[in-house]
Amino acid sequence: MIAVSGALPKALAELNACSHDEFVAALANIFEHSPWIAEQAARSRPFAGIAELFAAMKAAVDRAPAELRMALINAHPDLASKTQRAAGLTAESNAEQNSVGLDRLSDAEYEAFERVNTAYRSKFNFPYIVCVRRHSKDSILRDFARRLPNDLATETQTSIDEICRIAALRLDQSVIGGDRLAVSGRLSTHVLDTNSGKPAAGVAIELVELAELGVSRVVARTTTNADGRTDAPLIGGRPVPIGRYELTFGVGEYFAARGVPLADPPFLDRITLRFAVSEPEGHLHVPLLVTPWSYATYRGS
Amino acid sequence: MIAVSGALPKALAELNACSHDEFVAALANIFEHSPWIAEQAARSRPFAGIAELFAAMKAAVDRAPAELRMALINAHPDLASKTQRAAGLTAESNAEQNSVGLDRLSDAEYEAFERVNTAYRSKFNFPYIVCVRRHSKDSILRDFARRLPNDLATETQTSIDEICRIAALRLDQSVIGGDRLAVSGRLSTHVLDTNSGKPAAGVAIELVELAELGVSRVVARTTTNADGRTDAPLIGGRPVPIGRYELTFGVGEYFAARGVPLADPPFLDRITLRFAVSEPEGHLHVPLLVTPWSYATYRGS
Amino acid sequence: MIAVSGALPKALAELNACSHDEFVAALANIFEHSPWIAEQAARSRPFAGIAELFAAMKAAVDRAPAELRMALINAHPDLASKTQRAAGLTAESNAEQNSVGLDRLSDAEYEAFERVNTAYRSKFNFPYIVCVRRHSKDSILRDFARRLPNDLATETQTSIDEICRIAALRLDQSVIGGDRLAVSGRLSTHVLDTNSGKPAAGVAIELVELAELGVSRVVARTTTNADGRTDAPLIGGRPVPIGRYELTFGVGEYFAARGVPLADPPFLDRITLRFAVSEPEGHLHVPLLVTPWSYATYRGS
Amino acid sequence: MIAVSGALPKALAELNACSHDEFVAALANIFEHSPWIAEQAARSRPFAGIAELFAAMKAAVDRAPAELRMALINAHPDLASKTQRAAGLTAESNAEQNSVGLDRLSDAEYEAFERVNTAYRSKFNFPYIVCVRRHSKDSILRDFARRLPNDLATETQTSIDEICRIAALRLDQSVIGGDRLAVSGRLSTHVLDTNSGKPAAGVAIELVELAELGVSRVVARTTTNADGRTDAPLIGGRPVPIGRYELTFGVGEYFAARGVPLADPPFLDRITLRFAVSEPEGHLHVPLLVTPWSYATYRGS
Repeated sequence: MIAVSGALPKALAELNACSHDEFVAALANIFEHSPWIAEQAARSRPFAGIAELFAAMKAAVDRAPAELRMALINAHPDLASKTQRAAGLTAESNAEQNSVGLDRLSDAEYEAFERVNTAYRSKFNFPYIVCVRRHSKDSILRDFARRLPNDLATETQTSIDEICRIAALRLDQSVIGGDRLAVSGRLSTHVLDTNSGKPAAGVAIELVELAELGVSRVVARTTTNADGRTDAPLIGGRPVPIGRYELTFGVGEYFAARGVPLADPPFLDRITLRFAVSEPEGHLHVPLLVTPWSYATYRGS
Repeated sequence: MIAVSGALPKALAELNACSHDEFVAALANIFEHSPWIAEQAARSRPFAGIAELFAAMKAAVDRAPAELRMALINAHPDLASKTQRAAGLTAESNAEQNSVGLDRLSDAEYEAFERVNTAYRSKFNFPYIVCVRRHSKDSILRDFARRLPNDLATETQTSIDEICRIAALRLDQSVIGGDRLAVSGRLSTHVLDTNSGKPAAGVAIELVELAELGVSRVVARTTTNADGRTDAPLIGGRPVPIGRYELTFGVGEYFAARGVPLADPPFLDRITLRFAVSEPEGHLHVPLLVTPWSYATYRGS
Repeated sequence: MIAVSGALPKALAELNACSHDEFVAALANIFEHSPWIAEQAARSRPFAGIAELFAAMKAAVDRAPAELRMALINAHPDLASKTQRAAGLTAESNAEQNSVGLDRLSDAEYEAFERVNTAYRSKFNFPYIVCVRRHSKDSILRDFARRLPNDLATETQTSIDEICRIAALRLDQSVIGGDRLAVSGRLSTHVLDTNSGKPAAGVAIELVELAELGVSRVVARTTTNADGRTDAPLIGGRPVPIGRYELTFGVGEYFAARGVPLADPPFLDRITLRFAVSEPEGHLHVPLLVTPWSYATYRGS
Repeated sequence: MIAVSGALPKALAELNACSHDEFVAALANIFEHSPWIAEQAARSRPFAGIAELFAAMKAAVDRAPAELRMALINAHPDLASKTQRAAGLTAESNAEQNSVGLDRLSDAEYEAFERVNTAYRSKFNFPYIVCVRRHSKDSILRDFARRLPNDLATETQTSIDEICRIAALRLDQSVIGGDRLAVSGRLSTHVLDTNSGKPAAGVAIELVELAELGVSRVVARTTTNADGRTDAPLIGGRPVPIGRYELTFGVGEYFAARGVPLADPPFLDRITLRFAVSEPEGHLHVPLLVTPWSYATYRGS
């Protein structure tokens, strides 16, 4: 569970039962600095589930006049802007930007993001908005490159779509009770020792999110259990960020510990699988079938 | 063919027929600064093949008194010593040390080699000798760590053995005609596209020798031919240095060029296989079987 | 759920609450023709679970005097005996023998079983007993060949062990409520299309139990679902009989239906995997990774 | 080398130098009962190679008037006709038909071929001709089903094409010296033990040509050598007949002999790969990568 802000998640039943003002206060920042959306949604209470609540908020955005929609867009901060970070973001924006590492950019990355923001803002006159929890730093920069050639109407709608994705993730983390929104994905692995025909237990695993310009980040570090799997998914309960990854398996140590005869140095030691994620809400399974002399992987499900 | 020195390879027939002095001059540095070995071998002419010639030289070493064998050991330079390089090595030693990158060490590597040499020389009172063409920088440092605890008798014999390996490689490169000594290995690959059931042609391949302390070196950069193989082995006609390697295949570009539907970004783009070489004179085949969603490799032959 | 006999499964609560005679009547044939075991177990009522009930029955067997244990052994019918089948077996024995196909033997098989029974009975003077639900016809014949050289004491104990296995399976099917005994295994598969990187849906699958002497039997015939799996395990809710199997996948039709270019005739059409089961209570997963030009399988879990 | 008939292969040089009559006598039956083709080709002597000789014979066919071409077609026997076999075929026709097993048909197959011949002859008024060395019995029956709906012009040309294929194979076997015609294919395998990372030596291999209606035929029975390959290709020096095959590998015995721990019975014992051949002149490599718990195969080259 991602702690979106300091506030505890609210129960849906409570939101259905509380006063109008309490409801608005609780959901004021689901859409950045835009409590009017919560206000309109409040009138449709009670909600049978979180999906219904989200639909009511999205409907408020969809039927808002163009000026109000543009105000919603402009209520968002620039990505990775040091000035704006210093001046203060909402707790939600801050947590989101940190989740993708925008608070720990290399100089080259920082400059790349500055270029993105400036180029985008000077063309469209509003900030570049993307649901950062669905992305790695690299894929944000690629997304920007794809969107910059668009016309104003397309980018206005794309911005609203991304804002709704941000809101759906915030809502999913802020309200509990009943259903969940389909905003999370899962990345998992397992290791099968085809030398012994058994799941490989005790294999050290490391998942790194690769970055072209900056420092790659270790996302997960774990060890396979008796079933050759990891106790928790490598990434779960949140979108799997679009991006490139490297998954490393310490098979040399594993086979050595089992007394399997190996070459010196062992033919296979730390096996790395490099792959990309393109569907943040999908279930991606990347297993390893391994002997001391061979291995295979595939996109499973 | 490795150019060991400026001299052209001699034909065995010529060596059999020339004067004693010419014979000795031609083979004076097969054993470093030790023409007495060529002198003794000269008396056994003619030789039916290079293996017989090498056996005669090795016999001269084996029957030499202990002092002469120790002088042979002491005729060798320290590995990677800047002072000795400045003072001048034989052309053969220079080429050999350069082949493994000892002339382009990082500071950390340079210090590691200095430590090796000093520790070894202070214990045994002669230089640490290893046949560098059979090694990567990393494996030399590991070899040293394994040998340092040995006693004097063991290391004296090990040094002679390594000197004979060096000599065999020099001889194999210096003399032509008839047989070759079994001093070369081979590292090869091929790429099979199991999506189309055909060899994958036009796949960009890069082979890197990994270094723990210093800079990894690109050993080969090539492209697969119509048969999914490389026109020449990745390493051939010489020992395959003991060490760790990374082989990279540009499969994303390959499938994109063939119009195969891919995710965005593609699930597999640049596939890297990491493996170690432990038998420099062996034939190691590391193929890739690949679809856009899966791959496998194994140690073939 | 296997219908062991015509009787409906009893609830454990009911067995705990009913009269002594009703209890004994319900469980009289859990051990073949030996109601004295149910009678002794009845005194330990109530039972917290089925495992506890089984333990009480097994304890009655374990503490019985040798003569009574031998009577228990002799209460069992010969395997596949036409005479005894004509004379009438318990409903339980009949269902068990039919489950492994002992009512549909080829002439060669019938003769083989006759030889087994006669040889065994003339050596030990009691019938050969084996828990047939854990076996195929072939593995029963192999089990006999392994056991025939044993001495009397060993075979007496082995017979009691097999009788307890038979009883555990009968009890697991006859009583419901609370726990299950660990007497069932599972055989499953799934098909991954590594050409498209997705589960292969709609692949026809057939599982055949192979027989050396007689007719092989189709055990399951099904089609993969959207997840590339079968809706139910190929074998589940019962032991997976020890034996050899052939699993066939109609991949030619699958790829043709998807419009994938194939050779004529297709390189791969009906893929068969042959494997053996050795642990009837284990979970055995035998997947297929397939393109039109390659496939792989492994023992998974 | 296939012995097409009792005659020894002739050297091309000899054919270039001998008398016109000797030349015609030597090549009279390259085209069935049609020495006029050899007669015409004789005038173009000398030939630089076998391909040039074949081109001259084919040119004679191509420029022949329609009646002569039809006579050539009608000079061929019906396939698998017992009456015609009794009356006597050319040695060449006899050897060819026997090679595909047409002299050892099951009753069901014999009836199927009778139906083919009768239906074909009644529609086209000439015998169904196919180059049988490129086919299995099953693929001949499929070829017939594909060709029967054709019109007369198409089938006349197809018959001539098949006659030329038959002639090319006869010529390739009858004349030696210089080039070979591209009429042969190759089917090969190798076994890699990915448990030990080495070629699997001593694995028993059997290749069976499958037949739907009749008895499947063992085509090759061999054992892998030290390189995990077979000393000779499974099929080589001739076309690889279009058809379906089963390749069986005795891996259970192989691993047991090496002392590898196995289940009882072993999970994998006799592995069978079923595949089809569609290109008789191609090189088809079907390897097996195997551990006691997994295996993979692919169409290699």
